[in-house]
Amino acid sequence: MTPPKARHPILIVGSMAFDDLELPSGSNKNVVGGSATYCAYAAALFAPVRLVAVVGDDFPEATLEDLASRGADTAGIERVAGKTFRWAGRYSANLASRETLDTQLNVFADFRPKLPIAYRSTPFVLLGNIHPSLQLEVLDQIENPRFVAADTMNFWIEGEPKTLDDVLGRIDTLAINDEEVRQLSGEHNIRKAARDVLRRGPKRLIIKRGEYGALLFDEHGAFFAPSFPLETEVDPTGAGDTFAGALLGFLARDDSLDGSSLRRGLLMAATVASFCVEGVGTTEVATLSHERIAERLEELKRLVHVDA
Amino acid sequence: MTPPKARHPILIVGSMAFDDLELPSGSNKNVVGGSATYCAYAAALFAPVRLVAVVGDDFPEATLEDLASRGADTAGIERVAGKTFRWAGRYSANLASRETLDTQLNVFADFRPKLPIAYRSTPFVLLGNIHPSLQLEVLDQIENPRFVAADTMNFWIEGEPKTLDDVLGRIDTLAINDEEVRQLSGEHNIRKAARDVLRRGPKRLIIKRGEYGALLFDEHGAFFAPSFPLETEVDPTGAGDTFAGALLGFLARDDSLDGSSLRRGLLMAATVASFCVEGVGTTEVATLSHERIAERLEELKRLVHVDA
Repeated sequence: MTPPKARHPILIVGSMAFDDLELPSGSNKNVVGGSATYCAYAAALFAPVRLVAVVGDDFPEATLEDLASRGADTAGIERVAGKTFRWAGRYSANLASRETLDTQLNVFADFRPKLPIAYRSTPFVLLGNIHPSLQLEVLDQIENPRFVAADTMNFWIEGEPKTLDDVLGRIDTLAINDEEVRQLSGEHNIRKAARDVLRRGPKRLIIKRGEYGALLFDEHGAFFAPSFPLETEVDPTGAGDTFAGALLGFLARDDSLDGSSLRRGLLMAATVASFCVEGVGTTEVATLSHERIAERLEELKRLVHVDA
Repeated sequence: MTPPKARHPILIVGSMAFDDLELPSGSNKNVVGGSATYCAYAAALFAPVRLVAVVGDDFPEATLEDLASRGADTAGIERVAGKTFRWAGRYSANLASRETLDTQLNVFADFRPKLPIAYRSTPFVLLGNIHPSLQLEVLDQIENPRFVAADTMNFWIEGEPKTLDDVLGRIDTLAINDEEVRQLSGEHNIRKAARDVLRRGPKRLIIKRGEYGALLFDEHGAFFAPSFPLETEVDPTGAGDTFAGALLGFLARDDSLDGSSLRRGLLMAATVASFCVEGVGTTEVATLSHERIAERLEELKRLVHVDA
């Protein structure tokens, strides 16, 4: 019952990491994470994936093999001497907020994405949350991409506004959270903030609102995809990356970028991201079946369905 | 083009007040407010309204006349010697939070709702956020209501848990916000919290999430109505009451309480409540036309519409 994958591959550039997670359910050390990892697992459900990232010599070969077995080309992952990027964080009792306890860039500090020749014509590109100058370097190595989506964060919005502006001028879709879109635009009102961001380049803005859902602003207007109300919330780490990966995968498989595909893609992305929260790290996303996805997608659609 | 009103009247019991509002747009003194006022204006768009409340001798006769001109029977509003209930509050720059600066109960301190004989067979009842023992007194005076909805707040959840539990056992629908449902159930997870509340009596729970929308839990499952993303946000005071009033009005006019009516009612309620935020106090809700409502309702539906 597994639907066929897209013919079009997706290039994913981002971090691969070890996370130490202090969750209400307990502490978990050395959890394999990173934006590219979550994105890749989610996108690979729908399309062939090409991964560009850097790991240290401590990163498990088994994870790379697992990603490869799910259809991710890992030839673009550089393994260099040293330690993999590490992040440690503590979540509040209700998972609504988190604090960073420690960040060790390690081999990620010198990361310069180098695309294998075979990757340069990849039509779908997902730029994870890395330095905007590295995002530009990736774009310089790509030939006529059909669709480029990017993530960013407060650190770059504050520290690299000009470089980020260059990125905005070269991407199709920006996918960030509430707080980031408000900081980027200097405007609290979401509609006004969205208009400001769209004026600066991207054709579409996706605002990720965690447990409240996601908003899309594009030439057709606004669209809202609710989050799936979960019974079991374990670990929100990577849910936003899972969302982005699933969206790109869906679009590549749909082979369309029209308003309807984007809207159906957002519902699919919300569905896949909901599973991510149900387990620690990539546990759930790495083992998802299309049967479970299809079932929950129907439930999500019922959540907003009204009779005519 | 105004659709015909319901035959079934709605009884609304709650506060009528003067509010001093410190808004980002400026300070506004002596703004006519109160839960019953907002509910009544919204419900009267769809159905005849019967108001039970208390005001002091300082409350403007013009407001009562205006409510009457919109189809609210004000015979149940007691006017007593003394000052009307007053609330003063200050909103944060982004309207996301507010603090109470002052509360003067005044004549509201001795409020004991007395229903005129003619009101006792009202089929639709909306119990605003008043002491749960007063909510029970209203229910004791009502004969076989068809639908009873109630609001409450942290103050009663904390201070009057047993009385509130009696209320829960006698109402059809509880409509409260995120924080309140979590406090009432002692459970952060929204699905588990909803299940707990529904076990305690009401057939339906509506969770109001402000700018993020509203969730309904009933025998058919969950339903989500998004908030309308506004371009102009001026004053959120009374938006939740406007939501509840519009919902009851819609249900009375629809003359149905099935799952489909509730769901369409939630979208209508979200639509009417969005207007409330666009003006100070009741300015917008008191002057709404069905043409404007219909137009925005269509826009709200488009916000969650996907092609099949």
